[in-house]
Amino acid sequence: MDISELGEFALIARLTAGLTSHSSSDVGIGDDCAVLDMGGDNLLLATCDSQVEGVHFTLQTSSPEHIGRKALAINLSDIAAMGGEPRYALISLLLPPHLSVDVLDGIYAGLRAEATRFNTAIVGGNISGVGVAQQICIDITLLGTVKRGYALLRSGAGAGDILCVTGTPGESAAGLSTFVRPSTTPTVPPFPQLSIDPQSLQYVRERHTAPTARVREGQILSQLGPDKVTAALDISDGLSGDLQHLCERSQCGVLLDLARLPLGEPLHTIARAYSRDAHDWILHGGEDYELLFTCAPDAFEAVHTAIRAQTGTPVTPIGLMTPASQGMQILYPDGHAASLVAQSWDHLKH
Amino acid sequence: MDISELGEFALIARLTAGLTSHSSSDVGIGDDCAVLDMGGDNLLLATCDSQVEGVHFTLQTSSPEHIGRKALAINLSDIAAMGGEPRYALISLLLPPHLSVDVLDGIYAGLRAEATRFNTAIVGGNISGVGVAQQICIDITLLGTVKRGYALLRSGAGAGDILCVTGTPGESAAGLSTFVRPSTTPTVPPFPQLSIDPQSLQYVRERHTAPTARVREGQILSQLGPDKVTAALDISDGLSGDLQHLCERSQCGVLLDLARLPLGEPLHTIARAYSRDAHDWILHGGEDYELLFTCAPDAFEAVHTAIRAQTGTPVTPIGLMTPASQGMQILYPDGHAASLVAQSWDHLKH
Repeated sequence: MDISELGEFALIARLTAGLTSHSSSDVGIGDDCAVLDMGGDNLLLATCDSQVEGVHFTLQTSSPEHIGRKALAINLSDIAAMGGEPRYALISLLLPPHLSVDVLDGIYAGLRAEATRFNTAIVGGNISGVGVAQQICIDITLLGTVKRGYALLRSGAGAGDILCVTGTPGESAAGLSTFVRPSTTPTVPPFPQLSIDPQSLQYVRERHTAPTARVREGQILSQLGPDKVTAALDISDGLSGDLQHLCERSQCGVLLDLARLPLGEPLHTIARAYSRDAHDWILHGGEDYELLFTCAPDAFEAVHTAIRAQTGTPVTPIGLMTPASQGMQILYPDGHAASLVAQSWDHLKH
Repeated sequence: MDISELGEFALIARLTAGLTSHSSSDVGIGDDCAVLDMGGDNLLLATCDSQVEGVHFTLQTSSPEHIGRKALAINLSDIAAMGGEPRYALISLLLPPHLSVDVLDGIYAGLRAEATRFNTAIVGGNISGVGVAQQICIDITLLGTVKRGYALLRSGAGAGDILCVTGTPGESAAGLSTFVRPSTTPTVPPFPQLSIDPQSLQYVRERHTAPTARVREGQILSQLGPDKVTAALDISDGLSGDLQHLCERSQCGVLLDLARLPLGEPLHTIARAYSRDAHDWILHGGEDYELLFTCAPDAFEAVHTAIRAQTGTPVTPIGLMTPASQGMQILYPDGHAASLVAQSWDHLKH
């Protein structure tokens, strides 16, 4: 059997089955980061994620600087999802032999700029595959710290908690769509002048090529304490898919209120131009790198105020956690509820 | 300009120029591991290294289990070179879509076996590139710890120190040669019955496909303290190339005594069969993962005895550190000395 027949999630489950933690305070596999107890006042957070040319980016649709920025941002987002402080990055590059030095310099400039922005030191790395690699791969391990007892986990939500999201998810997926299908009317490729609002277009494209990890927002959530903020993760697979991860780890159900999903003007504009339902992108689009979290009902005001005052980032309550027996439900504006089926992107199957 | 014109070491220098450490106790880039101060009793060690199909291994010459073992072993060796204790591994896999699940299971079995052998927990990872990757890439970040003040560095050697090596370097390169040129007489490929001693052949091949990191040996060197063991690194690029790194970082020269280089029977047998000078492999062959270290002259007996008694691994004194002005010299058995020119393998240029 080929691995492509197995699928990404089945493959990960197969490879991680039976892997156990070293000690009782290690969270191990299955959260946004591994949480490791090295004996100090803080716990160590560790995560690694890759960006592969042709899968996650192309040199036609992203600048080298954006490619570098995003490669670090997706890892910063994992630290953000635990409420941690990013500290150290190790960067492993797989490079095709005929890559131009200018492109590599641009990627590295993006990596460095993003590292500086989040006070992260690049402390190691390696370069390989130059003889044989067919595409660029940027694999980053990011280390961070979080105060003992304050790591945001996926597993802490309970029935009655309020489900919240930062920012406006769906815009990254919309931006990607405009690259895949650059115009709403057939024209000459690759990227002709479009008949849609250029500002909205540029905005959603940059949300895809240069996302910003919600590092400060995650730290504020962590500092509020686990009695206020009960669970969190970042949206990388898509809101519905990541919500499913949260429900599974917290042994909860959820009632998501469609009318409350935050929908900004740019996404509305793009959805109209492409005759698409913006809610599809919000619910099932990936690579948002917003934070999805739950808080105790009486803590919402404090959470909302703290994030808004210290970062300006909007926080929207989008649903209510329910007992596991109720599963994942979505409430439509007409008052009827239906099952919410997670649609995570599986890189092995597409 | 293509990156292949620049060369690996020039490229790494270009990318790491100007990267600085977070705090004064961070060693940062340029040693076998980054040494990071997270505030506890121990310092954190972090390293990452990749194995790429077609560059570092092939499925024709290595079993899947050996590929997995070696991918972890090369990282364990970096922790060993700092005298550290390996703790946590994050494993990032780039996989071609039509890889068989059996091969992947074998690689993972090798990874797990090696992790278990060195008490290392696999705590995270990711899988990517399945849609587009042309070859397997296994990229591992390994975290370890070392007692504050006891990390073995490349920079501590001084003139008068004794240069030592563990085990018998050169055997890995000899093993690789037997794969590249499987027989001493022209026959049908790929790997016919050879006219040379099969036990020696299997031994050198396994030294290449399944090297053992000198983790315990490194820990013993570290525990002896920096007044006894002054500098260390592992031999990955080849003895001469890594010796140059040690000399540069310690601002020393060296007088290497050719007659003292450890040469075992298997390498002698293979060299004779291939009409090759065994010393070429010992001096310039890569991927030995032995430790090259320096110790104070009056500490050699204690070092030798401790390693031998606790691990059984041979330690051989192979030269003397000299002032930097004398450069790298090699002493031949007839009494004349000549410049020793480092010949490191550059993956970008070959």
